[in-house]
Amino acid sequence: MQNIEAYQKSFITYLEDFAVEKEPKNLYEPINYILRLGGKRLRPVLTLMACEIFGGDVKDAMNAALSVEVFHNFSLIHDDIMDDAPLRRGKKTVHEKWDLNTGILSGDAMLILAYQLFENYESAMFQSLAQLFSKTALEVCEGQQYDIDFETRNDVTVPEYLRMIEYKTAVLVGASMKMGAIVAKASSEDQELIYDFGRYLGIAFQLQDDYLDAFGNPETFGKQVGGDILEHKKTYLYLKTLELGVEKDRSNMVALMSNRSISDGEKINGVKALFDSSGASRATQDAVEIYTNKAFHILESLNISNEKKQMLRSFGEYLMNRRV
Amino acid sequence: MQNIEAYQKSFITYLEDFAVEKEPKNLYEPINYILRLGGKRLRPVLTLMACEIFGGDVKDAMNAALSVEVFHNFSLIHDDIMDDAPLRRGKKTVHEKWDLNTGILSGDAMLILAYQLFENYESAMFQSLAQLFSKTALEVCEGQQYDIDFETRNDVTVPEYLRMIEYKTAVLVGASMKMGAIVAKASSEDQELIYDFGRYLGIAFQLQDDYLDAFGNPETFGKQVGGDILEHKKTYLYLKTLELGVEKDRSNMVALMSNRSISDGEKINGVKALFDSSGASRATQDAVEIYTNKAFHILESLNISNEKKQMLRSFGEYLMNRRV
Repeated sequence: MQNIEAYQKSFITYLEDFAVEKEPKNLYEPINYILRLGGKRLRPVLTLMACEIFGGDVKDAMNAALSVEVFHNFSLIHDDIMDDAPLRRGKKTVHEKWDLNTGILSGDAMLILAYQLFENYESAMFQSLAQLFSKTALEVCEGQQYDIDFETRNDVTVPEYLRMIEYKTAVLVGASMKMGAIVAKASSEDQELIYDFGRYLGIAFQLQDDYLDAFGNPETFGKQVGGDILEHKKTYLYLKTLELGVEKDRSNMVALMSNRSISDGEKINGVKALFDSSGASRATQDAVEIYTNKAFHILESLNISNEKKQMLRSFGEYLMNRRV
Repeated sequence: MQNIEAYQKSFITYLEDFAVEKEPKNLYEPINYILRLGGKRLRPVLTLMACEIFGGDVKDAMNAALSVEVFHNFSLIHDDIMDDAPLRRGKKTVHEKWDLNTGILSGDAMLILAYQLFENYESAMFQSLAQLFSKTALEVCEGQQYDIDFETRNDVTVPEYLRMIEYKTAVLVGASMKMGAIVAKASSEDQELIYDFGRYLGIAFQLQDDYLDAFGNPETFGKQVGGDILEHKKTYLYLKTLELGVEKDRSNMVALMSNRSISDGEKINGVKALFDSSGASRATQDAVEIYTNKAFHILESLNISNEKKQMLRSFGEYLMNRRV
């Protein structure tokens, strides 16, 4: 078994060879650009790792891993348009560097390229992979739509929020691992278990992201701390404050959010104090732990050696212990 | 064998049942909306017809036909955004009726739904259909990119233009027919032949569209006659004028195109006179005939009855003889 860095390295080598040097340039250059912006490549690493864990050859999983990464980057291009984001990983987003039409069309082409990568597998495996991919990709679209819908709704519930992050983020983590299991020809029981492992871990990861956005260390957290608060995002922390808080917490939250005469720092600190006093901070940390433990609990049922279970657990801890 | 209206009717019945009544509404309502805007449903009709011609059951081809139509409508949504088009078939385009983000995301979901429709076939057929679909869909994106690139280029050649319309329009016509052949388990030789039949017919159809845009009957041609001229579109007529015309034709064309002091009618009539005097009108009509004949010539090699060949020929004539 390899460690995470080794998987990353071999994946990046494979990715470098995937440069689409085709015409028309204006369609394919943005694809090569976004695929080379870097990132931790966590999803493809999970595909490779899952394949090896179920006794498959890592090489066989490369095209599935690449498909997952191409799809993820497709969704980044289109999401960046929808969010009007100027930067991605410190570089210009595709629609900023080129234009809106290029962003739409290059994204479309990437979604198709992601399917094409499955053509390297024989037909039964092709169908399993493509079927899982379609289901997952559609859920990611649904998650993105819920996220957009939530911006203009004031009655979002905690279960609705959990479904949104499950669809928008977690199912792709689960699917990345299941694809590795499919390539390794793991039993369908193990395929489902590893999917759920990834899915729970994905939910835990996103909840932790919500927490760190408010309470993370500004020096090590990749994004601006308090960004969600300033954007009035209906995060788990926010929704839990409304759910758990007393009437005064709720009215204070509304007053703080609509107060335009205080500084960003005052707003962030005021809202964070409400997250704490309402019990939402604690509840969020609890939820992170609950979903992480749900993931780890699944490991017990997996039909693999203890050493491999330990490896999956270590990966989960690596992912969750970025106590920044 | 059924006639075209019968195929249309049974397809529309099938399409009506496909309403995606899923959540989130804002993702699926635009999909149901565009799929119900009407249209001649030519592509799915071709899939059904090809299936029956090669001895298959029309019912078995319904999901492939629907996939083609869903894909076609996906491309309409995204193209309408790129072209900033307010209307589609006399109704508001998706991004006008909803917004840009809805147009992008609903389009993405349709591309995925088109793949999902192949899941109704067993794995070898699933792979054949999905593989053809991916190749075609990518070419449609490439064709769209060439079309965008041509807007800002002044050195577009006739062969480049032909490749653009082949990719943007004709390959999907070919693929629609080939999918019917795949479902009917036609020989791979027949699959390729019917693909080429559709592809040539698609090129002829698009060239005729260029011709009718300038010389069609305003009362029966669906679009504004002269629209391509006013939009300075580099159509076959335009490129042929530059290729065949004498130096004076070329300079007259440039002068007319950049003249802002004449009315739309004067511009249209002036350019049409140049199309005629340069020989481009004649050359375009010739090209329509050449590509139609290329299509009909292929029929001879097809391994089907003369009656069925006649049916395909009639369909080609129906398509090309819209002398509006």
